[in-house]
Amino acid sequence: MSADRLGARFLQDPLTRAFSTVLADVRSLDLGGQVADYIPELANVDADAFGIAATSIAGHTYATGDSATTFTIQSISKPFVFALVLAEIGFDRFLEHVGVEPSGEAFNAISFDDAGRPANPLINAGAIVTTSLMPATSADERFARIRDGLSVFAGRTLAIDQRVYDSESRTGNRNRALATLALSTGVLASSVDGAAEPYFQQCSLLIDTADLALMGATLANNGVNPRTGVRAVSAEVARHVLSVMSACGMYDRSGDWMVRVGMPAKSGVGGGIVAVAPGEYGIGVFSPPLDAFGNSSRGVETLRTLAARFGLHLFRHADQPGSLVQAIEFDPETATLSVRVRGALDFVDAERVVHETLAAATAHEFTTLVFDLSGVTEATPFVARVLHDLLEQARSAYTVTAVDPGGIVTGIR
Amino acid sequence: MSADRLGARFLQDPLTRAFSTVLADVRSLDLGGQVADYIPELANVDADAFGIAATSIAGHTYATGDSATTFTIQSISKPFVFALVLAEIGFDRFLEHVGVEPSGEAFNAISFDDAGRPANPLINAGAIVTTSLMPATSADERFARIRDGLSVFAGRTLAIDQRVYDSESRTGNRNRALATLALSTGVLASSVDGAAEPYFQQCSLLIDTADLALMGATLANNGVNPRTGVRAVSAEVARHVLSVMSACGMYDRSGDWMVRVGMPAKSGVGGGIVAVAPGEYGIGVFSPPLDAFGNSSRGVETLRTLAARFGLHLFRHADQPGSLVQAIEFDPETATLSVRVRGALDFVDAERVVHETLAAATAHEFTTLVFDLSGVTEATPFVARVLHDLLEQARSAYTVTAVDPGGIVTGIR
Amino acid sequence: MSADRLGARFLQDPLTRAFSTVLADVRSLDLGGQVADYIPELANVDADAFGIAATSIAGHTYATGDSATTFTIQSISKPFVFALVLAEIGFDRFLEHVGVEPSGEAFNAISFDDAGRPANPLINAGAIVTTSLMPATSADERFARIRDGLSVFAGRTLAIDQRVYDSESRTGNRNRALATLALSTGVLASSVDGAAEPYFQQCSLLIDTADLALMGATLANNGVNPRTGVRAVSAEVARHVLSVMSACGMYDRSGDWMVRVGMPAKSGVGGGIVAVAPGEYGIGVFSPPLDAFGNSSRGVETLRTLAARFGLHLFRHADQPGSLVQAIEFDPETATLSVRVRGALDFVDAERVVHETLAAATAHEFTTLVFDLSGVTEATPFVARVLHDLLEQARSAYTVTAVDPGGIVTGIR
Amino acid sequence: MSADRLGARFLQDPLTRAFSTVLADVRSLDLGGQVADYIPELANVDADAFGIAATSIAGHTYATGDSATTFTIQSISKPFVFALVLAEIGFDRFLEHVGVEPSGEAFNAISFDDAGRPANPLINAGAIVTTSLMPATSADERFARIRDGLSVFAGRTLAIDQRVYDSESRTGNRNRALATLALSTGVLASSVDGAAEPYFQQCSLLIDTADLALMGATLANNGVNPRTGVRAVSAEVARHVLSVMSACGMYDRSGDWMVRVGMPAKSGVGGGIVAVAPGEYGIGVFSPPLDAFGNSSRGVETLRTLAARFGLHLFRHADQPGSLVQAIEFDPETATLSVRVRGALDFVDAERVVHETLAAATAHEFTTLVFDLSGVTEATPFVARVLHDLLEQARSAYTVTAVDPGGIVTGIR
Repeated sequence: MSADRLGARFLQDPLTRAFSTVLADVRSLDLGGQVADYIPELANVDADAFGIAATSIAGHTYATGDSATTFTIQSISKPFVFALVLAEIGFDRFLEHVGVEPSGEAFNAISFDDAGRPANPLINAGAIVTTSLMPATSADERFARIRDGLSVFAGRTLAIDQRVYDSESRTGNRNRALATLALSTGVLASSVDGAAEPYFQQCSLLIDTADLALMGATLANNGVNPRTGVRAVSAEVARHVLSVMSACGMYDRSGDWMVRVGMPAKSGVGGGIVAVAPGEYGIGVFSPPLDAFGNSSRGVETLRTLAARFGLHLFRHADQPGSLVQAIEFDPETATLSVRVRGALDFVDAERVVHETLAAATAHEFTTLVFDLSGVTEATPFVARVLHDLLEQARSAYTVTAVDPGGIVTGIR
Repeated sequence: MSADRLGARFLQDPLTRAFSTVLADVRSLDLGGQVADYIPELANVDADAFGIAATSIAGHTYATGDSATTFTIQSISKPFVFALVLAEIGFDRFLEHVGVEPSGEAFNAISFDDAGRPANPLINAGAIVTTSLMPATSADERFARIRDGLSVFAGRTLAIDQRVYDSESRTGNRNRALATLALSTGVLASSVDGAAEPYFQQCSLLIDTADLALMGATLANNGVNPRTGVRAVSAEVARHVLSVMSACGMYDRSGDWMVRVGMPAKSGVGGGIVAVAPGEYGIGVFSPPLDAFGNSSRGVETLRTLAARFGLHLFRHADQPGSLVQAIEFDPETATLSVRVRGALDFVDAERVVHETLAAATAHEFTTLVFDLSGVTEATPFVARVLHDLLEQARSAYTVTAVDPGGIVTGIR
Repeated sequence: MSADRLGARFLQDPLTRAFSTVLADVRSLDLGGQVADYIPELANVDADAFGIAATSIAGHTYATGDSATTFTIQSISKPFVFALVLAEIGFDRFLEHVGVEPSGEAFNAISFDDAGRPANPLINAGAIVTTSLMPATSADERFARIRDGLSVFAGRTLAIDQRVYDSESRTGNRNRALATLALSTGVLASSVDGAAEPYFQQCSLLIDTADLALMGATLANNGVNPRTGVRAVSAEVARHVLSVMSACGMYDRSGDWMVRVGMPAKSGVGGGIVAVAPGEYGIGVFSPPLDAFGNSSRGVETLRTLAARFGLHLFRHADQPGSLVQAIEFDPETATLSVRVRGALDFVDAERVVHETLAAATAHEFTTLVFDLSGVTEATPFVARVLHDLLEQARSAYTVTAVDPGGIVTGIR
Repeated sequence: MSADRLGARFLQDPLTRAFSTVLADVRSLDLGGQVADYIPELANVDADAFGIAATSIAGHTYATGDSATTFTIQSISKPFVFALVLAEIGFDRFLEHVGVEPSGEAFNAISFDDAGRPANPLINAGAIVTTSLMPATSADERFARIRDGLSVFAGRTLAIDQRVYDSESRTGNRNRALATLALSTGVLASSVDGAAEPYFQQCSLLIDTADLALMGATLANNGVNPRTGVRAVSAEVARHVLSVMSACGMYDRSGDWMVRVGMPAKSGVGGGIVAVAPGEYGIGVFSPPLDAFGNSSRGVETLRTLAARFGLHLFRHADQPGSLVQAIEFDPETATLSVRVRGALDFVDAERVVHETLAAATAHEFTTLVFDLSGVTEATPFVARVLHDLLEQARSAYTVTAVDPGGIVTGIR
């Protein structure tokens, strides 16, 4: 049962209200833009449609506006197919075929580096080569595998808009030329049609903003679909994809995008944009009129507003992290120093624990060290290693008792 | 008293040991590289010198190797002068003079956009214009202000290497040409010499890796020097600078850098690199031999290793955040629903609190809602607003009691 | 009967001897170079083969060395197919599909201008579009027409090297990509294969240096094959082709070529070069090893030497043209001024005739003007008009007698 | 006394009338264009002024319209200063500093090749380096030498427009930047000001269209001013300059210019254009409104019209050169073969003489060969050598008598 249906019985949930306010605010602006019309099927869209959806890594979706209107995914398919292919062949083999650098050029640029590779998997040339890298014995199988993989991201089986695909295929000579160039430089892993047709098909998959939000949330959630619990790709692949999206996702505007939005994102000519707040949210926006750079005008403004209002910028963080060292107590009678730690520990937290422990150890004369990790909810392997080493060394001079119900340090050899 | 001196009395601190291991591991590799020699003063450096230092946002520094060897800051000055200038004139006025997009070109490229602006403040042309934007009535005053500002980042007064400056100035015609071009397009805010000489001077400031680590930590710490507690720039400026560093800091290799390291960074031809894990650490590395891209060979490898081992990549995060909703209890006798929340709350946390509260409210028949925030250590303004709104709406149907000793929701009107 | 066969009965003709000396001189130089090997058929050539041939616009051919060794025409076909297509569709329609500007790039550059046109017909992209512009109902017919047209230039039916064609077609994906790009921008006038296959075929036609010399001589001779007397293209088309060859024929080296050689030229990867001294000679050279720019090393040196020794540079001309006004005589008794003109008259000659006539008319009192054009061998239409007008005006003041057996001025209305 | 003053006493000379007709025809077209206004001194010009002048290599000038209106020479100075510098330092040393290839870019492009050289001497960067190469001990002396040299081309002492120079110098930062870049790559041969100021001065020299015509005619006349008879530069330098003008003179439009006009040319932002028909004419045109490429709109149209009407295109030439072999007679009684040759002989002519002589020698049985060169007005050294060799060889089999009053073959050892 979705969060807003819950709210209907209780009270309007404040998050949906916040998104609705953003939608209303952006709708009130005169942002201009032009609906894509290079094929008639795209031009026939409702230009006023406007929807926003966000899905947290807990799998809850908040949606407002025309969030159930479907549209073709177009270039937003690129990072997800990139993810699927990385999962199949690995990053090193991928790099033999496609680079990961911004091209400083438009989406359809003929941008091949000295090694004959397209600049990155998010421009057309690179996306087509990426599609060719999906292992398959036929073009049909290749698209089937791509659709299955994208459906895992979306948590439902995605359908194709046959008329859009027919039209893309009929007019797609520039993309076929890019595929042929890639074939000539030796980086295309299939025939021209074996890459171009599945590429046209993947671009013609129908989604709505709620799908986009969940697909983004799957990247945000280390590759696991937070609604279905099914892993789409590994955490490492998700991280690679987000890294490349942040460098190349907005083509030649990545710097401004990082300053003003600060979320890895990808837009499509159909009017959709997906953005990811890693470890937090996937966000989908849909509004067909495009700005001069080919991105949804309202979509860009919506994401800027969300980033600013909701604090979703990558480099936004709290000034003063809460205390992780819950208590350090010295009992002179028993000559015991007790350190209690709590919360989720990453590298910067580990440092604080070590630092405060050492400072206390310097200040007091003690013989027994009690290290209580029962309040720790999680720790990275490196953090576990650091704490383990701290205690191992302490054992040479003191009596050490680790309270470690989660097995954080005691599991380390 | 520094952390490792504390450790000396007790036991070797495990963080310093971890850094020392990285240094030894990287030193054992044959990475090649060539010391910069475009001026004789740079060629005379000790090519074997190798140091690493990291400073957390708590202000603790861990250092190993030749961390006290001084060298000239060179291009690493660029992001910090960019920060100082943003603090003076604001982002919008800055954008009238310099862009923030990657140029896809080398550091000394002649890269001006259609508006006559250098591509970004981290290539030479953009850095010189940035220097010209520091308000001053003379070149000397301009450099004095820049040195004072960088000294706040470093927590000590930085000195200039006069011989390097003299040599840079004597051979700096290409940079003077870039300044003259900027003058001709109308974006230079001073005379040619009024920008070029302070620029040569800022590049000749002497630092060591510990300085770099603290300077980076100041960016990581929302603009406040975590050792001295002095604010260098606003949190917004720090965020802008990190955004531009992540897009443009490694010139034409930003994609690969984001994939493999995932920390905003800037290198200098003197052999230094600064990297920032926002909200966590500033890191400085120094080793003079440069790779083909002009970055310290060992420095790059060190940062890759640190990112992988210590989990410092921007897009690395825990799979399952610890429970923020400490407890939800329903007492049928008093028809009371109690919700206890703890920890530092950001947007994704707020969502979970709201979601779980609504779910519990749906499941139970109650008349009184007790909302206990006494365990919350911090909350962003948006989160406070969301919780406040939640309680306000609940008041229309229930008796609501907020336990809020930190004034998180009660301070909101 | 060829000139050197005549010479065999009489004495060795000095022109053949001069060419042989150039060949020997160039052969003695160590010019390096690498035989093309992108397909095996090209690599199997005799790298030492070296031939020179020149054909005057009178149709006489002088040849030396391996002038009868056949090789594939490759890119040298481009200007001749350009000529055939211009003859079919005209310059204005041609410009809708292909530009005529140097691209400043390599022969296989992906160089399309803002209008979607390849830069010029002598780079691959432009040559393929040019081939597509040959009107035909099938690819086979297109090639048949091209072969027939090139055969008129060569004065014999050219045959195809089937194995080279097969190999070019098999490995020609880059060229197919260029054709597909041209299709996507709307400038290709056929299907991709309808252009690519005839293009591969035209490049695989077999020629020898004597053929090249005659083909060049046909351009030099205003479009008429000077051996067979058959017109291949109009004088205007020949002029257009020579103009574009002089601007774009040597790719990104046209400036140096114009300085040092000063003849429109085109090279092929098979080792041939054709050069044209307009109104004088066509020259063919063949030697397979190519320099770094893809031009025959010995071919380039041969043409430089020929231009310097034989005075074939476009901008070489005599200091003092011989007197065209054979005599101006004044007979005071009959008050008659007689002007006798001889030779071939172009614009600069006409000026001299007019100027001297007016000067004499100023110096003498006369009533009758006799204008004797019996020694004039030819005159451009503009010159005829100028002389006609001069005489018409003179008639208003004098008795004018024109001696004009060739009807130069009397044919003008 | 000029040609049109002569004509005034007699009848209007037809050449001046022809030019006047062109001027009237072009004036009647609506060609648009915008007067340059980057400095106020240029904007204050009479936009309607329109003049044409042509000077033949005999030194006669035909002028019409506002041919005596003065304007600043601007970029038209570039080829002439290039000529002066070539005369001073030679082509090989020049190539160490500046290339001779088209840049494919605009006139003020920042176009340096891998060797740090500007692309060619006709773009600003290359022109400034060219100016720096004029040997001098001071900027003043450098300009004095340039002015003296240009004055030899113009046949009168050229004056500077001091207000234009002041304005160019005040606003010339882009050009100073180009000079500084050239200094940084090591190709500038003077200080920045030592090149920039003389460059601004040379651009500010005042000329009229008659000056331009005579300057062009000096290049057309192998480097000798045809009015004054003073040599400005060697024939080789003139040929080099015309070659580079034909490749680079019209910036990124050289192909279309070669097709439609076919004369080496150079335009200036002041509204002037000089064009050269080598061995025939220099032409000057002046009309201030510029087209989108920065060339005088009417100037371009005027030169196209002149080329078409007057047959001035480089590649226009007669179909059938007049007979050079005046007569070949065989006297069976004396067994004498007589060959009479006339006219000016170049390489193609020599070939015909040799060919016809050999053919006649094959056809007849003779013992004496009479070779009559008394009608030959000139011959290139190579032609003289060929004829000399022909006769030398004939002497081994025949009695040879050379009638050679001009010493054409008898002077050869």
